[in-house]
Amino acid sequence: MRSLKVIKIGGNVIDNPEKLQSFLSDFAAIEGPKILIHGGGKIATKLSTELGIEAKLIDGRRITDEDTLRVVTMVYGGLINKNIVASLQKYQCNAIGLTGADANIICAKKRPVKKIFSKEMNQAIDLDYGFVGDLDKSSVDAASLCKLLESGFTPVFSAITHDGKGQLLNTNADTIASILAASLVKQYETSLIYCFEKSGVLMDVNDESSLIESINPSVYSDLKKNGIINEGMIPKLDNAFEAIENGVKEVFIGKSDALTGLNQNNFGTRLTM
Amino acid sequence: MRSLKVIKIGGNVIDNPEKLQSFLSDFAAIEGPKILIHGGGKIATKLSTELGIEAKLIDGRRITDEDTLRVVTMVYGGLINKNIVASLQKYQCNAIGLTGADANIICAKKRPVKKIFSKEMNQAIDLDYGFVGDLDKSSVDAASLCKLLESGFTPVFSAITHDGKGQLLNTNADTIASILAASLVKQYETSLIYCFEKSGVLMDVNDESSLIESINPSVYSDLKKNGIINEGMIPKLDNAFEAIENGVKEVFIGKSDALTGLNQNNFGTRLTM
Repeated sequence: MRSLKVIKIGGNVIDNPEKLQSFLSDFAAIEGPKILIHGGGKIATKLSTELGIEAKLIDGRRITDEDTLRVVTMVYGGLINKNIVASLQKYQCNAIGLTGADANIICAKKRPVKKIFSKEMNQAIDLDYGFVGDLDKSSVDAASLCKLLESGFTPVFSAITHDGKGQLLNTNADTIASILAASLVKQYETSLIYCFEKSGVLMDVNDESSLIESINPSVYSDLKKNGIINEGMIPKLDNAFEAIENGVKEVFIGKSDALTGLNQNNFGTRLTM
Repeated sequence: MRSLKVIKIGGNVIDNPEKLQSFLSDFAAIEGPKILIHGGGKIATKLSTELGIEAKLIDGRRITDEDTLRVVTMVYGGLINKNIVASLQKYQCNAIGLTGADANIICAKKRPVKKIFSKEMNQAIDLDYGFVGDLDKSSVDAASLCKLLESGFTPVFSAITHDGKGQLLNTNADTIASILAASLVKQYETSLIYCFEKSGVLMDVNDESSLIESINPSVYSDLKKNGIINEGMIPKLDNAFEAIENGVKEVFIGKSDALTGLNQNNFGTRLTM
């Protein structure tokens, strides 16, 4: 079976033009079929501020209202995505920039209204997250995605999906990466790679040299029990192990500027079964 | 040979949400392979105004500076393109939204600096149009575009291209439509359709019932000689006949809300050899 790499970069790379160019050059050099998923970064927040659109929060939860959706569609789906594609073309990588609506590859469900207890209002409220899309295993049209990969294109996804009924939806980029990887395990031996600002999962979050090279579910359980895993990492790692349970061969978590190590299996922390 | 329809819509449709939905529903219903190219409309101008970006003109010629390119990349490549794609998906048309950078389909040349005589400054000046892309017959990678068509996707292009060196470029949508149609004549029997605000080419520009049903080069020459063709139409028609000279079977020019007539060859003015 051919191998496939699904790589996610976050806002810290997007926001730094030099880092981004260096990353894209490294990404282009990775051999074989690959997919890139990019998050947003601060450009959308900056544009919202310039347009006088205030971030809408209910009880600390971010809401995607109509204005915010317009901004992220412009910034993630247009500005960031198309500039990444043009840069990858410069590095001889035949990128094609997509949202989940394109070729109907990711069809999400609008997050349902939830009853929560609002601390702010000291009462139960119906919380509507707005135009946010949630994903499950049935969300991805793997056949369409494979057609693009088999044509020799490198899909580049922004974190926008749709509901199949004409509505675009804001969607978590980590989840998109994980769901895309899991949906292609029948066609490819799939690796999922999360790039972030640290060298990987660390024994001591303040010591970049304390990298944990590999973690399996039993090591993960011990690390959590002993309070070694930083709380912010837990959703990321839960997400990663879920992808592995769904057939993804391995998940790497590491620093975006170390991507070239991937070819030698030398990149950050490796999670496996 | 299979037939292919390359259809261009302008800003007047984009700016009217009801007209746009009605057009997209009609477009989705057209049988066989097809491509959509859309222009911009007033949304980009509105966003520029909100952001305090002034339209830059030199001697009446519009310049695409860096700020303007950012705005059109967001609005044409993101907001408009992705909403059109999501709507087409609703109408069961498997659209994929693209710029010329995606899959390297349209590689343009940045318009060279031109020496012009400036009336404003009453002297010769070097005019730099900024980030504007010009196209010729070699600009299109027909093989990549055919892979998308053969996969059953409907490409939807915004009027953004790239130079292959990492730079996005603002490009005339009419020209994109004409060049795309001409580049596919070996693989498809190609028709090019321009949708605009009139019923077609009119004998009397103020009388919608004075439609000229068909024009060939000799009729065109007579109409021009007799001053019947409205001056604003001449570049559009020159463009159309150039496409026909390059192997496009026919060009239709008509009103966007009459698109369903295409299936019966009953749409606006038909230009042929």
